[in-house]
Amino acid sequence: MKVIDQGVCAAKGFLAGACHCGIRKNQSKDDLALIYSQSLCQCAAVYTSNKVKAAPLKVTKKHLENGMAQAIIVNSGNANACNETEMESANREAQCAADFLKCEKENVIVASTGVIGQPLPISCIEENIQQIKLGNDQSFKASQAILTTDTIEKSIAVEFEINGVVCHMGGICKGSGMIHPNMGTMLAFITTDCNISSNLLEECLKENVKKTFNRISVDGDTSTNDMCVVMANGMALNAPVTKKTDSFTVFKQALRFVMEELAKKIAADGEGAGKFLTCTVKGAKTEQDAQTLAMSVCSSSLLKAAMFGSDANWGRVMCALGYAGVDFDPEMVDIYFKYKDQVIQCCKDGKALDFDEEKAKDILSQNEIEIISDLKQGDQQVSCWGCDLTYDYVKINGDYRT
Amino acid sequence: MKVIDQGVCAAKGFLAGACHCGIRKNQSKDDLALIYSQSLCQCAAVYTSNKVKAAPLKVTKKHLENGMAQAIIVNSGNANACNETEMESANREAQCAADFLKCEKENVIVASTGVIGQPLPISCIEENIQQIKLGNDQSFKASQAILTTDTIEKSIAVEFEINGVVCHMGGICKGSGMIHPNMGTMLAFITTDCNISSNLLEECLKENVKKTFNRISVDGDTSTNDMCVVMANGMALNAPVTKKTDSFTVFKQALRFVMEELAKKIAADGEGAGKFLTCTVKGAKTEQDAQTLAMSVCSSSLLKAAMFGSDANWGRVMCALGYAGVDFDPEMVDIYFKYKDQVIQCCKDGKALDFDEEKAKDILSQNEIEIISDLKQGDQQVSCWGCDLTYDYVKINGDYRT
Repeated sequence: MKVIDQGVCAAKGFLAGACHCGIRKNQSKDDLALIYSQSLCQCAAVYTSNKVKAAPLKVTKKHLENGMAQAIIVNSGNANACNETEMESANREAQCAADFLKCEKENVIVASTGVIGQPLPISCIEENIQQIKLGNDQSFKASQAILTTDTIEKSIAVEFEINGVVCHMGGICKGSGMIHPNMGTMLAFITTDCNISSNLLEECLKENVKKTFNRISVDGDTSTNDMCVVMANGMALNAPVTKKTDSFTVFKQALRFVMEELAKKIAADGEGAGKFLTCTVKGAKTEQDAQTLAMSVCSSSLLKAAMFGSDANWGRVMCALGYAGVDFDPEMVDIYFKYKDQVIQCCKDGKALDFDEEKAKDILSQNEIEIISDLKQGDQQVSCWGCDLTYDYVKINGDYRT
Repeated sequence: MKVIDQGVCAAKGFLAGACHCGIRKNQSKDDLALIYSQSLCQCAAVYTSNKVKAAPLKVTKKHLENGMAQAIIVNSGNANACNETEMESANREAQCAADFLKCEKENVIVASTGVIGQPLPISCIEENIQQIKLGNDQSFKASQAILTTDTIEKSIAVEFEINGVVCHMGGICKGSGMIHPNMGTMLAFITTDCNISSNLLEECLKENVKKTFNRISVDGDTSTNDMCVVMANGMALNAPVTKKTDSFTVFKQALRFVMEELAKKIAADGEGAGKFLTCTVKGAKTEQDAQTLAMSVCSSSLLKAAMFGSDANWGRVMCALGYAGVDFDPEMVDIYFKYKDQVIQCCKDGKALDFDEEKAKDILSQNEIEIISDLKQGDQQVSCWGCDLTYDYVKINGDYRT
C-alpha cells in the first residue's frame, strides 16, 4: 500500500467539483460540492448517534436502503437541521444533483454542515449548481468547499493490490468543532474503485469507525449531521471481494488507514487547536478498557488546557484515568510525555517521580505530543487523538452563529 | 427557615480558625483551616467516585467507620495525592490536629486540595498549627483558607425549627475547576447543632448530594480529593431525630437548601466563569431523564462558549439534548433563554422561531442566564447549574501547576 494524490478522485471513474452557490456570504469560499461516479456504486454509510438527526441524514438513509449510490451532494454554511422546511430542502437538494448529473434521485447522497436551525436557502443551490465543473483533478476544490471552521483541507488517498490488481481508495473530510466519539460534526466521503459487495463494505466501515473516527475528541460534543460514506464502483476490475478472504483483509486495512488518517487530520485541526495530542493507554486488560481510558484522557478539558500551557501536569492524566469508569489499579500506573524520540517519565507506580522540568517543558512545547499511560495490567493498547484547549477555541465558539 | 450569618460557626458549639502554615508561597493566603465541635458529633460523608483516591479520603473514611467525629483539618495548596508519603502525611495531619485540639485522632477528618503528585510538606502544618486562633466568628477566615483557584469564599447558614426548638446549620465549601457530577474538586463542610442519628444524617446527605452537588458542572473533570462532610453535635437540644417523621423532613429540607446554595456558589465561581448558567429541563417523563438532559446541556463546551459570546445558539442546546442518551421526541422540544422576568423563545416543536436577536442579546449579556428546554412529554423538571467557558478558564488551567 502506498500513499498517492487526488483524494476522492484517486479511484478510477470518480469526479468531483465545487462552486460558491451563495449559502455563505463570503464569495471567495465555496459552499457546494459534488462527488460523482461514472458507474453505480456499492455504498455504505454510518450516521450520528445524536437523537436529533438532520434531514439530509434521513434522506440519505432512505436512499441507501438498497446499498447503492452514484453521487454525493454536500453543502456547507447551513446544517439544514431543526427548521420547518428541512425535509423538503434535503429532497430538493438530492433532486437538483440528480438533474444536473443525469442520475436517479434515489442514488444521490445528501450531506449538510453549518449552523443549526436556519432554513436552507435551497434556491441558491438549484440556481447555481450548473457552475460546478466536474473533473478528476477537482478533489482539492471539493474538499475545501465542505469545510466550516476547519483551517486546512483534509484528504488522503492510497493504492493497494487485490489479487495482483491495483485498486485505489481516497477520502476527504471536514470536522473541527463538535468532535467526539460516535461521529462529531464531521463528514467523511471515501471512494474506491475496488469491486466489493455492499454488505462487506458496510461491515468494514462499521468496524473501522470504532477504531478511527470514534477515537478522536475535540470538545465532547456530538453533532446532528455527521456521516461517513464509502462508495465502491468496481472499476479497478479486480475479482469481486464477496467473502472474508485475504483480499477482504487487504481492503479493510486500506480502509482503516484512510479513515485513521482522516480522523487524525480532524483532531489536529480541532477548533482553535495549537497542538495535536495522541493519548495512548497500554498494558490494559481489554481493548475496550484501553479505549475508554484513552478517550477519557483525550477529552479532559483540564489536561487539554495544561497541554496548551506546556505544563507537565500528569496528575490530570491520573485523574482522567480515574474517573473513566474502568477498573484498574492506580498504584501500578506509569505516565510518560513524548515527542518523537524524546520521552520523559513523570509518574511510576502511581506516584510522582522527580523529573527534569526543563526537559518536560521542551517536549510539551512541541506541536505533536504523545501522552502515554502504562497500566502494566494486561497487553492491550489503544491510541486516541485530540488537541489542546486554547483561547481560540473559546473565541471561535463564542461567536460562531453571528 | 431563614438565612443567617457565620457559616460553619452558626451552629452552637462549633469553632473555626485558619492560618498560613507555609504550603503556599504566598504568605498573604492562608492554607490551613480547622473546624471543631465542643462535643463529639454524629457525622456522615460522601467521597469522590474517582478510582484514584487521595490519602486524606482514605484516612477520613477509616475514621468515620463509627459515624463519629469532632474536628476537621483542611489544607489547601497540595492535594496530598499520588505521592510516596501521602498516607503517612495524612495520618500525621490528623494526629497534629488531635494534639492541638486535645481530641482523639480517630475523631479527626482530613481534607486536602491543590496540586496532585507532590509530597505534602507536613512539617509546615505540624510546626504552625498552633498559630490558629479558634473562634465562633472565624468561619469566614476558614472558608478563605480552603480556596484554591476560587475567586470568592463560599458560605451559607440557616436557622430552622424542629418541634419548636431552634436549630442552626451552616456550611463552607470550595471548588472551581475539576467540577462535575459525582463530586468535582470540591470540599464542603456542613455543621449543625441539630440532634439527629448518624444513619439518618448519612441517608439525608446521600440523597441531597444527588440533587445538589451532582447537578453542577464546570468542566467535566471529577477530582481525586472531593468530599462533603456533615457534622451534627446535638447542642440545640431538640428531641433526637431518629425516625422519618416530619422533623426529619424539616432537617432534610434545611440540608438540601444549604447544599444547593453551596453547589450554586461553586458553579457561579467556576474557573474563569463570567456567567452563572441554570439549565432547566421540564416536561420530562422521569426526574432521571430531566437530570441527564439538563446536565448534558450544562456540560456542553460549545454551548458554554456560546453563552460566553452572548450568542443565542439554541441549536447547541438541541444538539446537547440529542446526545445525552435519553429517549425523547426532538420534534416536541421548545427552547427559551431567560434572565429574571425577560424570556425569549427561540425554538418551538424542534424548529427555529424567527426571534428578536436584539432582545436575545440583551438577555444573554446578563451574568445569570437560565436555559429552559421544555420537552412537553411529561411532568418532571430538574435544574442543573454551571458557567460559561471563557478565555480565563484556558488561562487558569494552562498554567496552574507552575
